[in-house]
Amino acid sequence: MKAIVSRQVFQLAEGNLFQEINIDSPQLKEDEVLVKVHASGVNPVDTKIRQTPLNGNARILGFDAAGEIVEVGSQVTDFKVGDRVFYSGSNQQSGSNQTHQVVSAHYIAHAPESLSYEDAAALPLTSITAYETFFDIFRISTNPEENKGKTVLIINGAGGVGSIATQIAKAYGLKVVTTVGRTETKEWSLKQGADKVINHHNTLVSELEQFELPAPDYIFCTYDTDHYYEQMIELVKPRGHIATIVAFKEKQDLNLLKSKSITFSHEFMFSRALYQTEIDQYQYYLKDVAKKVDEGIYTSTRTQTLTPLSTETIYNAHQEMEKQQFIGKLVVKII
Amino acid sequence: MKAIVSRQVFQLAEGNLFQEINIDSPQLKEDEVLVKVHASGVNPVDTKIRQTPLNGNARILGFDAAGEIVEVGSQVTDFKVGDRVFYSGSNQQSGSNQTHQVVSAHYIAHAPESLSYEDAAALPLTSITAYETFFDIFRISTNPEENKGKTVLIINGAGGVGSIATQIAKAYGLKVVTTVGRTETKEWSLKQGADKVINHHNTLVSELEQFELPAPDYIFCTYDTDHYYEQMIELVKPRGHIATIVAFKEKQDLNLLKSKSITFSHEFMFSRALYQTEIDQYQYYLKDVAKKVDEGIYTSTRTQTLTPLSTETIYNAHQEMEKQQFIGKLVVKII
Repeated sequence: MKAIVSRQVFQLAEGNLFQEINIDSPQLKEDEVLVKVHASGVNPVDTKIRQTPLNGNARILGFDAAGEIVEVGSQVTDFKVGDRVFYSGSNQQSGSNQTHQVVSAHYIAHAPESLSYEDAAALPLTSITAYETFFDIFRISTNPEENKGKTVLIINGAGGVGSIATQIAKAYGLKVVTTVGRTETKEWSLKQGADKVINHHNTLVSELEQFELPAPDYIFCTYDTDHYYEQMIELVKPRGHIATIVAFKEKQDLNLLKSKSITFSHEFMFSRALYQTEIDQYQYYLKDVAKKVDEGIYTSTRTQTLTPLSTETIYNAHQEMEKQQFIGKLVVKII
Repeated sequence: MKAIVSRQVFQLAEGNLFQEINIDSPQLKEDEVLVKVHASGVNPVDTKIRQTPLNGNARILGFDAAGEIVEVGSQVTDFKVGDRVFYSGSNQQSGSNQTHQVVSAHYIAHAPESLSYEDAAALPLTSITAYETFFDIFRISTNPEENKGKTVLIINGAGGVGSIATQIAKAYGLKVVTTVGRTETKEWSLKQGADKVINHHNTLVSELEQFELPAPDYIFCTYDTDHYYEQMIELVKPRGHIATIVAFKEKQDLNLLKSKSITFSHEFMFSRALYQTEIDQYQYYLKDVAKKVDEGIYTSTRTQTLTPLSTETIYNAHQEMEKQQFIGKLVVKII
């Protein structure tokens, strides 16, 4: 059982400080499963966690996985050996940059039957993030008909979260406007289902005016929240809702929310795992993702694959994330 | 037709710069009514608007009223001369510190039959603020059964908004914890229906721990948001919701919302009037207030009355608001 670990906080400029180690076969708790990881999705959060202090002496990153169950804990009833599953897991536990991963059965769901492991591994973290944003935060209806006429603006439509968020919003009846900056990202975002793509090199206000687009009911920021904070407030409908997944660099003026009675949320996919509340919600959302993939409604957002599992692969994957230019999702094929 | 106006921005320490004037009988627009104001509620927003730049050459404050319709515009069908009505109105138009007020029929509702004009005038602005916070922002259910088991913490439970918010939250099935600082405010808040009253002279966290109270699902801040910002974030449930009606003095760190995925809203009762969106919602909420008052579910929060309408009365009323110690609501009896 092989794993790629980091034993210290480091910047990529310091060189490749990832290490390959061998791990003994773990003892499962009663509600856990052991997964033979076939593919691990890469996310910006990997690079952020790499730069936060370590709790133990080695950290295994990777918070997206698809694989096959090879062992189940004594109380696990919904899954059996041989099941194909996908999951994001918890940032409080070892990730999927390893050949075999222990994960709580609460966090996993059966992978879409129609997808390869690589395509499935692209989806969990970004899908859960988008589902939480739409359903827990914006509280859109699960009935697409009731969302008709409402618009979401997704900032950075071609990123990992922006791509699947576009597909999910469309499937649930919203009108989707995304921002992009390049020809390739425009094409990709339209392929994800965006109704309208605007250019982030101009101000968002001027773009919305030019295309006579309505003030969005919801704005979902997946890039540089500080830069967009005031623009989002200017754009959103009165009593509208803004959510971000990107931490701020600066303090902000919350009084700007007042005149329109704006609601602002900071979505963080690991909140439920961190506070151990409603953790079955992960599974609930992943089941809907798998169902809609198999119905042909969602497609995988994977655009690139690195292999095999090695320190070089993980280092390269982190480099790709830190460029902040990636379209769709990068996946590491483990075996 | 008499009105109390301010012709300049001023601090109370500069003396009583309110002036009494006579106003000609106005021309109504087709969707307006003329109300003979019997009572005008006083709110902190009066003192805030007094200190913002004037648009015209004279400003009439007062954004709570109960009175009798004496004239209706040509398109008004829901109201007739002689109807008893109550309303908050719009901060974009002249207020209720006058004997006769022109107001859009969209903003008014029939006053509770069981209340005097003075008691009715205590309710509109604070009730609408609380309804918007609970239903538009927190999005609690209109079915009390569905809110059972959920808790709201109201900071400053004995203030104008805190008092009626307590009654409304209780009527809709929430458990209500309020903060107070004095024996009188504790008694008053319990009388409004608070399930538990905690002391704001201690930290809120220590109070909740001492009384073994659950982490609130919702926190409604009606006092000194800067002071409570970090405490509220520490207290609220993961994926919980905080709303305030009090502007910040300082910029704040929005990243503090991240680990729990907290939602933060700035409620402002005049947003709908200011942006002219969904303005009938005011009326919709006021109808529910009147119904629940007449059913004996809500009681007026009026605790004190000043009279007659004069520059001295309005000056004294502003002094009371600026002390920030007022329990319940202060009302000016106009005639």
